[in-house]
Amino acid sequence: MRRVTIVCPAGGIGGARFISGLLRHLARANRQDEVIVIANTADDIRILGLQVCPDLDTLMYTLGGGISKERGWGREGETWQVKDELQSYEFGPTWFGLGDRDLATHLVRTSMLDAGFTLTEVTHALCQRWNPGVTLLPMSDDRVETHVVVEDDQGRRAIHFQEWWIRHRAALPALSFPIIGIETSRPTAQVLTAIAEANVILLPPSNPVVSIGTIMSVPGMREALASATAPVVGVSPIIGGKPVRGMADACLSAIDVATTAAGVAEHYGPRTAGGLLDAWLIDETDAAAQAEITALGIRTVVQPTLMIDDDAAANLAAAALDTAESLR
Amino acid sequence: MRRVTIVCPAGGIGGARFISGLLRHLARANRQDEVIVIANTADDIRILGLQVCPDLDTLMYTLGGGISKERGWGREGETWQVKDELQSYEFGPTWFGLGDRDLATHLVRTSMLDAGFTLTEVTHALCQRWNPGVTLLPMSDDRVETHVVVEDDQGRRAIHFQEWWIRHRAALPALSFPIIGIETSRPTAQVLTAIAEANVILLPPSNPVVSIGTIMSVPGMREALASATAPVVGVSPIIGGKPVRGMADACLSAIDVATTAAGVAEHYGPRTAGGLLDAWLIDETDAAAQAEITALGIRTVVQPTLMIDDDAAANLAAAALDTAESLR
Repeated sequence: MRRVTIVCPAGGIGGARFISGLLRHLARANRQDEVIVIANTADDIRILGLQVCPDLDTLMYTLGGGISKERGWGREGETWQVKDELQSYEFGPTWFGLGDRDLATHLVRTSMLDAGFTLTEVTHALCQRWNPGVTLLPMSDDRVETHVVVEDDQGRRAIHFQEWWIRHRAALPALSFPIIGIETSRPTAQVLTAIAEANVILLPPSNPVVSIGTIMSVPGMREALASATAPVVGVSPIIGGKPVRGMADACLSAIDVATTAAGVAEHYGPRTAGGLLDAWLIDETDAAAQAEITALGIRTVVQPTLMIDDDAAANLAAAALDTAESLR
Repeated sequence: MRRVTIVCPAGGIGGARFISGLLRHLARANRQDEVIVIANTADDIRILGLQVCPDLDTLMYTLGGGISKERGWGREGETWQVKDELQSYEFGPTWFGLGDRDLATHLVRTSMLDAGFTLTEVTHALCQRWNPGVTLLPMSDDRVETHVVVEDDQGRRAIHFQEWWIRHRAALPALSFPIIGIETSRPTAQVLTAIAEANVILLPPSNPVVSIGTIMSVPGMREALASATAPVVGVSPIIGGKPVRGMADACLSAIDVATTAAGVAEHYGPRTAGGLLDAWLIDETDAAAQAEITALGIRTVVQPTLMIDDDAAANLAAAALDTAESLR
C-alpha cells in the first residue's frame, strides 16, 4: 500500500481522541502513513507570563501518552503545589488549572519563544520528548486569541475564551467570538505545504466554531484547502442534537448555527460551493438527516461516531479514512 | 525603652539566622524596635525567564517561617515536579534547585516586575504573605549581577555567581568578582532613608565579599553609611580561620584578604578612617586577635559567635545590639 499523508486540522480533546484513534487504526492495519496535525492556537493564553497552548498540549500529551485520562487535559499524575502557593499569595487567576508538571512545558515554551524561536520550532522541540507519532503543527506562528463577548448584570464585556470556557463553563451567553490578531495572522509555511501535499484531509469532531472555525479563519487557510487536491472528510461533533463533549452548543448558538449534524454540515458547506466538506460522517442517531445533508452536495456516511473507547475511536477514524480514500 | 530603628545589610543564610536571632532577642526582651533589612540582590539570576532572588527569598522564608530548616534555603516541604519535568525535556540548568513551591514566588515576582513594579514593591507584596517581622528592602531596584572570573582547563571565562557557588561549590578558583551593572545602580530611596534614620546598624556574619561587599559597592551606599549617625557593629563570619558556613574563604582569597577575623576587620576598616566598622564581634576562638583589631581603631568584643541554635543566635544579636547601644 502506498504511504499517504493525512492532514487533520484539530482542536483539543475531541481532536486528540480522534487522531489517537487514527494512529491506532493505522497501526493495526500495519500502515506507515504520515499524519500531520494542524492545531488551533487561538485558545492560547498568557498566564503569569507563561505562554499556555491548551490544544497543542492536549494533542501532544494525549498522543505522547502523558495525558490525564481522567480529566482529558493536563498531565497524568499531576500535582498542584505551584497553584496552591499562588493562592497563598492571592495572585493570578485561580480558575485556570496550572499543574506543576504542565507548568514545565509552559516554562520551556515561553523561554524558547522569548529566545526567538517560532511556536512551530518550539512545538517540534517539545515533541522530541513526547514522540506523539504525528507531526504537530500550530496553525500559525502569530499570536491569535479568541475572546468572547458576553453580557450579564456586570454589563457587556469581552473576556478571554479560556475564562469563558473554564471559569464560566460557557454558561454566560456568548454574543460573539472576536479573534484578536486573526486579520494579520498567516498559516505557517509548514501548514500550507502540508495542506498542498496532503492525500487526505480529515476534520475530527472538534468544536466547529472555536477550533475548526478558528483554524479556517486564518487568512489563506480556506484558500489553501480550496486548492488542495486531497478530499476533505469531516466527522460531526454533534450527536442527537447535542455536542458529544464540551460546550459546542453554546458556541454554535452564538453564531446562529443549529446544534445538529445537518446544521454543522451546512455551516461548513460543500466543497463544490466553496465550503469545506467533500463528505460528512454522522452518527446512526442522526441517520434521518442523511438525505438533507446529501442534498447540500456533501456525501454523507452514517456510522457510529461516539468514541466510547480506543477501538471505537479507531473504527471511526478508519471509516473517515475509507470515505476519503473512496473519494480520491 | 525608646523604640529604635535597627538596620541590617545582609546576605542570605548567615544574615537570615542572625536577624532571626535579633527578632528572638527583641521579643524575649519585650522590645518593639523596628528592624529594616537591606538585602543583597547581586546573587539574583534569571532562570527560564524567572527572576530568582536567592538572598531576598532566604531572608523572607526564614523570617516568615517557610524556610527548609534542613537545607537553609528554599521551602519547607518542597517538591520537585517542575525540575524533574525540565530534566525530561533536557532543558534549562539542572544544577539550580528550582522547587515547585519556590517557583510560585518567582512567578509572582517576575509577573509583577514585567508589569512595571519595582523589586522593592514586589518584595513588599510578597512579604504581605510571609510577615517576616522586618521591613525587607532590596539594596537596589536596578539589575545587578555578580559574575565570577574563573580559569580551568576550559580556559578563562566569567560565569554567573550562582553557577560558581552552586554548580561548582566555589571549588573553581575565582580570579575576580565583576558585578555587572553595579556602576549605574543606585540604592533605593527606602534604603537611603533607612540608613539615614537608623539608630543602630548591624552587619550580620554574611559573606564579606559577595554579600556585604556587594551591597557596599552600590554607588552611594558607602557615602550613606559614612554620613549615618548610627554606630555600625559587625559580626565576624570567620571563626578560627574558617568561614562558619558557606565558602567565604574562596571569595576572600580571590581579593587577597586573609580568612581570619582580623583580616575581614581590616578589609572592612575602621569607620574613623572611612571604613565600615565602629565595632567588631569576634569569637572566643579568636580572642588573641582582639588587640590587633583594636589597634586598627575598631572596638573589639569577644563573644561566642557560633549560631548553634536559636538561643545562641539571639545571644549573639543581643551582644551586637548592646555593643552598638553602648556606642550611641
